[in-house]
Amino acid sequence: MIPETLEYIDNQLLLIDQTRLPAEVVTFRCDSVEHVHDAIYRLVVRGAPAIGIAAAYGVCLAERGCRNAYLAAMDYLATSRPTAVNLFWALDRMRARLEGCASDHELHDALVHEAITIHNEDREMCRSIGIQGASLLRNCHCFLTHCNAGGLATSTRGTALAPIYQLYEEGKKVEVFADETRPLLQGARLTAWELSQAGVPVTVLTDSMAGGLMRSGKIDAVIVGADRIARNGDVANKIGTYPLAVLAHYHRIPFYVAAPTSTFDVSLETGDAIPIEERNREEVAYQGERLVVPVAANVMNPAFDVTPANLITGIITEKGSLRAPIQSIESEFVSVMD
Amino acid sequence: MIPETLEYIDNQLLLIDQTRLPAEVVTFRCDSVEHVHDAIYRLVVRGAPAIGIAAAYGVCLAERGCRNAYLAAMDYLATSRPTAVNLFWALDRMRARLEGCASDHELHDALVHEAITIHNEDREMCRSIGIQGASLLRNCHCFLTHCNAGGLATSTRGTALAPIYQLYEEGKKVEVFADETRPLLQGARLTAWELSQAGVPVTVLTDSMAGGLMRSGKIDAVIVGADRIARNGDVANKIGTYPLAVLAHYHRIPFYVAAPTSTFDVSLETGDAIPIEERNREEVAYQGERLVVPVAANVMNPAFDVTPANLITGIITEKGSLRAPIQSIESEFVSVMD
Repeated sequence: MIPETLEYIDNQLLLIDQTRLPAEVVTFRCDSVEHVHDAIYRLVVRGAPAIGIAAAYGVCLAERGCRNAYLAAMDYLATSRPTAVNLFWALDRMRARLEGCASDHELHDALVHEAITIHNEDREMCRSIGIQGASLLRNCHCFLTHCNAGGLATSTRGTALAPIYQLYEEGKKVEVFADETRPLLQGARLTAWELSQAGVPVTVLTDSMAGGLMRSGKIDAVIVGADRIARNGDVANKIGTYPLAVLAHYHRIPFYVAAPTSTFDVSLETGDAIPIEERNREEVAYQGERLVVPVAANVMNPAFDVTPANLITGIITEKGSLRAPIQSIESEFVSVMD
Repeated sequence: MIPETLEYIDNQLLLIDQTRLPAEVVTFRCDSVEHVHDAIYRLVVRGAPAIGIAAAYGVCLAERGCRNAYLAAMDYLATSRPTAVNLFWALDRMRARLEGCASDHELHDALVHEAITIHNEDREMCRSIGIQGASLLRNCHCFLTHCNAGGLATSTRGTALAPIYQLYEEGKKVEVFADETRPLLQGARLTAWELSQAGVPVTVLTDSMAGGLMRSGKIDAVIVGADRIARNGDVANKIGTYPLAVLAHYHRIPFYVAAPTSTFDVSLETGDAIPIEERNREEVAYQGERLVVPVAANVMNPAFDVTPANLITGIITEKGSLRAPIQSIESEFVSVMD
């Protein structure tokens, strides 16, 4: 079964504790705003859509019916992951709902309703990407993916993994190769876990093995998520995505990006304008307590890379797919967005 | 200063303990055959040429002047790493020397002399690859390398790193980017350590970052070692080498292999005939004690991949260089080997 990343039951937010995966499957129960803040801060829940949903439910755990407590919860939760756009977006929706509600004793129900709506919209988005993608990938059996653009990053089903789950549920034979995705190993820890939970055969490889695997002829399609998509169709995604696109191009393997239209940023002309976060050296230089890079050596640790549109076979969204050659998100936007 | 991997002083073999790098620099002192066996078995010393040299010195540590003790040492040391061709080759040379020596009281000196000869030949080979490579790479400033084909795998200077050390010593400005090289991190732990010891600026990156780095225009040449080279010029090397060759090709960056002619295996027509060792899942599935791949997922862990000759700009050997297009090692062999 495809796991549920978040559940809101009896005024508790239940999360799969992603810091304990894959060694242990533990439910992290939040019955206070502080618990939810802690869960987001410590990456118990991660992935932009999942963080947004968790924060929305988190607001509902403030003192019942107390307008000021809800507002304080929003401010506090906004500090849990300073760069997560979906977090602010979800909290803004909760705030608007609060402000639109005149009666204090209706506040709780209104906010819970809004959080459930955000949650359901995400489910719907994932399911729709799955259906759109499955129609495109109907003849593919063996997929390569990178990082975790799966159910654990969203409500369930994910973006890049959604078409694979869809094909699997339709009874198609599917198989996934998951890059481990250094330095934080989201592919090994999370993608491999959720796929195996769902019953989809999955094989983990180091990022350096993807080239040889493609050369062997085993891979029918590469499918990845996206962090941001510029107006010309260039895609920023987890570091290691770009070399996969080049390798897929060299081996004539189709390369797909699956992402909600909310990932489109038409304010950016090309991918070169996307800022790339440089993360700390410790993520590369240590494995747990063990030092693996000498102190005298430099370390580079960009979180993302940019894949130019010309290497992308298609961008799968919840509203349809853009097919190569991708010239401009904007010009194709109209048909896709309608 | 470029570190010395092995030194034989006062009837002791001194090794840099590579299992402790880069956190600690510790000398591992061997004064018995058992110590040397242990050092090879536990990867205190690794890299085919370095293992061969260590085993040769190891024989010299048997009971002085006792023919049977020397023969027993050879048999015992041959069990330290079952697949290391250089190990058997070095022990065969020691055995031939033993058999050619009629007088028991000359045995010790004869064997030490042979081990020193093997050691010196390796030094000479590395220095020569360095000189051959430096003449080819004179206009390159910034190198990308993979795994450790450096001094720590040989007597000193290495194969892929030898031209870089040579250029550095000639006063050229050089800089190295070292892939960490999952799963065993030889690039992060060993290449970065020895280059920084020698004063060469080095930056460690995860294997997945090499593509974006090449796209940035920073890399002038890729240079790697080789485990085996087939007759048509196909190269087997550490897993992750092949995707680097494809990425270099796509970015029009020259891709060089540096290896002694002893790496040529003319009995193999193409790289497809090179057997690829599949290693255990634990190397990928664990980081120290920490499980990072769920038990239900498969793991692939090939130790090597094969880079076809058409992606290689040049093969640098101690006897000269083969330049693209590399058609056949055999036909070019004559000029190179002479």
